[in-house]
Amino acid sequence: MASAANPFSLSVSSKPNNSADFFLRVQSPPNSVSLQYSFASPGSIELNSSRGGNLVLSSSRGVRSGRIRASSAQVMDQSVAKTDARAPTVVEVDLGNRSYPIYIGSGLLDQPHLLQRHVHGKRVLVVTNNTVAPLYLDKVVEALTQGNPNVSVESVILPDGEKYKQMDTLMKIFDKAIESRLDRRSTFVALGGGVIGDMCGFAAAAFLRGVNFIQIPTTVMAQVDSSVGGKTGINHRLGKNLIGAFYQPQCVLIDTDTLNTLPDRELASGLAEVIKYGLIRDAEFFEWQEKNMQALMARDPSALAYAIRRSCENKAEVVSLDEKESGLRATLNLGHTFGHAIETGFGYGQWLHGEAVAAGMVMAVDMSYRLGWIDDSIVKRVDNILQRAKLPSTPPEAMTVEMFKSVMAVDKKVADGLLRLILLKGPLGNCVFTGDYDRKILDETLHSFCKS
Amino acid sequence: MASAANPFSLSVSSKPNNSADFFLRVQSPPNSVSLQYSFASPGSIELNSSRGGNLVLSSSRGVRSGRIRASSAQVMDQSVAKTDARAPTVVEVDLGNRSYPIYIGSGLLDQPHLLQRHVHGKRVLVVTNNTVAPLYLDKVVEALTQGNPNVSVESVILPDGEKYKQMDTLMKIFDKAIESRLDRRSTFVALGGGVIGDMCGFAAAAFLRGVNFIQIPTTVMAQVDSSVGGKTGINHRLGKNLIGAFYQPQCVLIDTDTLNTLPDRELASGLAEVIKYGLIRDAEFFEWQEKNMQALMARDPSALAYAIRRSCENKAEVVSLDEKESGLRATLNLGHTFGHAIETGFGYGQWLHGEAVAAGMVMAVDMSYRLGWIDDSIVKRVDNILQRAKLPSTPPEAMTVEMFKSVMAVDKKVADGLLRLILLKGPLGNCVFTGDYDRKILDETLHSFCKS
Repeated sequence: MASAANPFSLSVSSKPNNSADFFLRVQSPPNSVSLQYSFASPGSIELNSSRGGNLVLSSSRGVRSGRIRASSAQVMDQSVAKTDARAPTVVEVDLGNRSYPIYIGSGLLDQPHLLQRHVHGKRVLVVTNNTVAPLYLDKVVEALTQGNPNVSVESVILPDGEKYKQMDTLMKIFDKAIESRLDRRSTFVALGGGVIGDMCGFAAAAFLRGVNFIQIPTTVMAQVDSSVGGKTGINHRLGKNLIGAFYQPQCVLIDTDTLNTLPDRELASGLAEVIKYGLIRDAEFFEWQEKNMQALMARDPSALAYAIRRSCENKAEVVSLDEKESGLRATLNLGHTFGHAIETGFGYGQWLHGEAVAAGMVMAVDMSYRLGWIDDSIVKRVDNILQRAKLPSTPPEAMTVEMFKSVMAVDKKVADGLLRLILLKGPLGNCVFTGDYDRKILDETLHSFCKS
Repeated sequence: MASAANPFSLSVSSKPNNSADFFLRVQSPPNSVSLQYSFASPGSIELNSSRGGNLVLSSSRGVRSGRIRASSAQVMDQSVAKTDARAPTVVEVDLGNRSYPIYIGSGLLDQPHLLQRHVHGKRVLVVTNNTVAPLYLDKVVEALTQGNPNVSVESVILPDGEKYKQMDTLMKIFDKAIESRLDRRSTFVALGGGVIGDMCGFAAAAFLRGVNFIQIPTTVMAQVDSSVGGKTGINHRLGKNLIGAFYQPQCVLIDTDTLNTLPDRELASGLAEVIKYGLIRDAEFFEWQEKNMQALMARDPSALAYAIRRSCENKAEVVSLDEKESGLRATLNLGHTFGHAIETGFGYGQWLHGEAVAAGMVMAVDMSYRLGWIDDSIVKRVDNILQRAKLPSTPPEAMTVEMFKSVMAVDKKVADGLLRLILLKGPLGNCVFTGDYDRKILDETLHSFCKS
């Protein structure tokens, strides 16, 4: 397909049994480049798009397109399937040399090898809160240390709640890590919901400029959303998640049994994010949810496991394509801009994150409809499914237009002063991330949901 | 060179005028791979090693080896040379898609285009301190805004001193950024010494999970060391730089005229790092320093410019090869483990960083000599050059063996409980980073420099 206008020949070498990583940028106006590679001996080559660009790989074994992990050797990890009958479902987050697995299943905390294979170094710090610690801390310490006497485990137990997701609490993690003399080859383990995962992840990113960490999410919210994708951080009194890092874990371990102790309100909060995936990119999943919401609310294990897997697959795909949120990834924030305003304006912790997101999604859907971008059947279906999930469909009465505007002005999706929003457009399962909308319509939506 | 055991053909495409980035991993036991690429039309391809591996590029234009930026179009930036007679020296830090230039020269703050080309977005936050602000803040604001009315500049002026390099001060940067409604497309500018650069860099890394930043170092210490290479962070009461990030700037702008206002003691402190480069990897540079120390102390502009350039070249090379300090980069910390103990144990800010490093280098050299790794001529030459630079060659009298040991135990170079040190070994200009030394010798060195 390409004429050899500027032929180069390039050879790459590395020491035996080592791998060599390269960063490759292609820039060519009418833009097509062809590469051929050949191995002197069995080996593997992995090529992932980290920005823009499409990639088509053809070989004698056929043609694959899209994101590629090509190999002339077998690279799939089969050990999980071999070692335990209750093999977890594995969803891979594909991020080049920072790729990692999400393990999903029942009884995974009773399979120590799943965790232990991802622990680096001899010292582990488990970060959890005073609600989760009495339920699962001993179990996690056991999973980390069973048959593994060289590992020592410390823990830090933080107060539970979104209002503690701030700098003073974060410092307690650093204090504990430093007092325990953890070094660069240590591993942080986040055991809890989204607040714990976000804080522990940011602490791991910043401690000694970065140590390994593992996510063990124990809420639906964290299992389907916050533990996957490497967004970490803390709140500032003026806005949510304003301080943080993109920092990927070594693995995410989702033991669905931990949901047995989850309060109903937390369960529903997590389902808000599940519903979100359907709305922004997976109409079929949304339809499945419409049929199975009752089973989900009744904690039917196989329904929950399916919803978690499908959500993780959606999230993993988006994150793989756009790790640092230059575009696509922002669509995961449907309803979050309005939702963050509710959480910040109304006081952290009054509403759960998913409750605020649910009301925020209704507002985003309302605005999409006012813009003429979706038809009213979608509006009704969203209202209906949220109702069945016992989620709010309006913001708290105390919220004013001004409260929304002041928080939205410091949203991370503002660029050069322009607020970009995620809005639905077209048939169910389609959305846009755009600053190109009529400001008056945003005002109309805010006024229709606020008394003043 | 490679037989086509597993031939693939691969095509890469991107939208017109876009670039496509890929991550490429090669893993093959006897390990040689050949790639050919050809363009359908003029374009450029850039391939950088991010880990391990050697790369040889051959084309009809000849053969280049080592780290490569290959292009079929002209990609070298020539605009600096074109636009101003006082063209800066440019040292490139080669880090793939995070590469950046260091500009070195006199009068660079009077050349607004140098800064403006690296500003992203319309809002800039200059972070400086109450010593530097009265001297250079107006000049920097002028350089950022001259002929550039769309840019608005805010500033935050922090108290001066190492003891303020902590979380409370860092929060003032976030407060200002959020109150000023800076968004993701903003740029942070560090104007000052190492403390300002480290704090501003970490703030830029963590604000909204990462915004662009520019370093304008105004001390020798920051110009030859801390502003280059992306190490950012703050101190914890139990140790230096324990919280931070690896985060690279868009550029480093070194206007050597800013040294005119630098106190003598600060000048000498910076020279400690200059001497370090000679000892660890550049014997010729050390010999040049022995001949030119008087000129450096007398602030001879051409001597200072040469010392800064050569230091930056050394640092850039090391950082390019080992950005995240998996090995080689640690050698830049000669004397720093002992030095950090002095700074922490003796109280931040009592001694300047370079003063503590100087005493620390003497201790590392002493230990290297006791281990039989260097001969005594090096010991004498180090003592001599530090004396001529008016730098201390012993720790403060208040330091005890226990103070050293307790701080060294939480050093970032501890791995699995073992403290690794940078020690000289062999002829001048050679060092090792190792945990493989006799513990008794470390004790001997500590006891010989401490009264108790």
